[in-house]
Amino acid sequence: MSSTTKKMAAPKLSRKKLIGLLQAEFPQASHALGSNYAIEKVWHGGCRVRRLFHQRALRPGGTISGPVMMGLADFTLYLAVLSAVGWVPLAVTTNLTINFLKKPAARDLIAEARLLKLGKRLAVGEVAIRSDGDSDLVAHVTGTYSIPIKA
Amino acid sequence: MSSTTKKMAAPKLSRKKLIGLLQAEFPQASHALGSNYAIEKVWHGGCRVRRLFHQRALRPGGTISGPVMMGLADFTLYLAVLSAVGWVPLAVTTNLTINFLKKPAARDLIAEARLLKLGKRLAVGEVAIRSDGDSDLVAHVTGTYSIPIKA
Amino acid sequence: MSSTTKKMAAPKLSRKKLIGLLQAEFPQASHALGSNYAIEKVWHGGCRVRRLFHQRALRPGGTISGPVMMGLADFTLYLAVLSAVGWVPLAVTTNLTINFLKKPAARDLIAEARLLKLGKRLAVGEVAIRSDGDSDLVAHVTGTYSIPIKA
Amino acid sequence: MSSTTKKMAAPKLSRKKLIGLLQAEFPQASHALGSNYAIEKVWHGGCRVRRLFHQRALRPGGTISGPVMMGLADFTLYLAVLSAVGWVPLAVTTNLTINFLKKPAARDLIAEARLLKLGKRLAVGEVAIRSDGDSDLVAHVTGTYSIPIKA
Repeated sequence: MSSTTKKMAAPKLSRKKLIGLLQAEFPQASHALGSNYAIEKVWHGGCRVRRLFHQRALRPGGTISGPVMMGLADFTLYLAVLSAVGWVPLAVTTNLTINFLKKPAARDLIAEARLLKLGKRLAVGEVAIRSDGDSDLVAHVTGTYSIPIKA
Repeated sequence: MSSTTKKMAAPKLSRKKLIGLLQAEFPQASHALGSNYAIEKVWHGGCRVRRLFHQRALRPGGTISGPVMMGLADFTLYLAVLSAVGWVPLAVTTNLTINFLKKPAARDLIAEARLLKLGKRLAVGEVAIRSDGDSDLVAHVTGTYSIPIKA
Repeated sequence: MSSTTKKMAAPKLSRKKLIGLLQAEFPQASHALGSNYAIEKVWHGGCRVRRLFHQRALRPGGTISGPVMMGLADFTLYLAVLSAVGWVPLAVTTNLTINFLKKPAARDLIAEARLLKLGKRLAVGEVAIRSDGDSDLVAHVTGTYSIPIKA
Repeated sequence: MSSTTKKMAAPKLSRKKLIGLLQAEFPQASHALGSNYAIEKVWHGGCRVRRLFHQRALRPGGTISGPVMMGLADFTLYLAVLSAVGWVPLAVTTNLTINFLKKPAARDLIAEARLLKLGKRLAVGEVAIRSDGDSDLVAHVTGTYSIPIKA
């Protein structure tokens, strides 16, 4: 997939529509969208999500915990899949690999996902996570989503 | 590493000692140990941890969310490292790969970790996650921890 | 999947039948089976394969090269899939993660694969690789195969 | 790591110097460089390597085998590490994850590696593999190299 081309293409679900559907159908997501996550941008096959900083996400050593980053990556990749396929809420992660690269700072995290492949049954993508305002990667993720057949 | 031999060996930190240190040094962990996790068994290079079921961990489709399983695996592997190395709280995950294998039931998850390799700088292990009372795997994880040099 | 139970079950394709099909349909495999690999045992959802030692597989430092181990793992997992599904030669790897754990000795490698999950579309398994006669792992692999729909 | 900046920086070892060292110290590599691989470009923290097409690399279905791609990725990432660290031939892969994305065509493969992180002990990078002349990815790899301490 040429990411350059795809970034230009309109998403199957706009940012606004995506937020609306998540809030309508998932009460938990609705809460998380208000307090933890902000969906900043959505394009075809990709998106950018901000994870808001909370003191409670800190782990020993003053750094943001690994599971917070894994959850952020998983969510961001999920939205990237929806942006390219449309509303298939039951898409599930089959595989996720994360490399932790740098201690994140005690501030917001920015995750940017893009699909590497979009097949009929599987979508594979990568997510780059950075601390807000820093160009270094704090984590890099690749993951696979299984796409259910639409009824 | 012969897991058979190692399961026999006494851990560097007993279950009781490990729980005490976690509670004393990590207020968050202290809370999580009471409400989310129960450390059931600790041996040299391995351990078993129960993730208590909560309604709020459910994701669309009635299943436990991926990040909950990732967090459980990461924590369980962390304890397995401590059980073999001793108290090195600043050990950090460098890499984690998870395969989601089966929709978990709406009940407790049981994670069992064991180290595949224990080096001076890196420890590599695997974690098997099952729904309580079911022998099928719901997820399988391999991960690497970087071990800081003790002062 | 309870590996204990499955080890008891008869494979869909016996070791002898599997070797025959590989030799009949894949000239390359036929060569490799004679000179590089020996399929030692096949059961339902698993198998054991020996990679014969050759001087040319050595890499700097006197160790067997990573790609040799990756190729061995991929082949062994492929056979484990066929042992459980039957003859689906066009099954393809979608994902493979390898952790290198110990410098292999300059002798044969023994790989043992077992399926962790067998679904209709995806099979996930793990492979343990050891030097012949040593119980330590030299590498650990998890991988996913996509199973084509039979015509 | 800002890849943009790093691509500008001169490598610790030029392409020419790297080829010379590989040929002088590794007879196997010397052979492979002539017949299988062509190192096309080297920059600080990255490189581009061509895998020459051979009929014998084909697997059932007329596609290039997975192990050929894994070997290519591993080699390319190895060179990316050397380009940033200098001549540390005993750097070893500790972990490699590959996602197979598209059936490669029956022609040369082009692999491009770039480091995501360069630490004192570990280097993490990714490799994009494409069929020559096609912008789609056929495989995506992330891997970690352990860097030995220089004497």
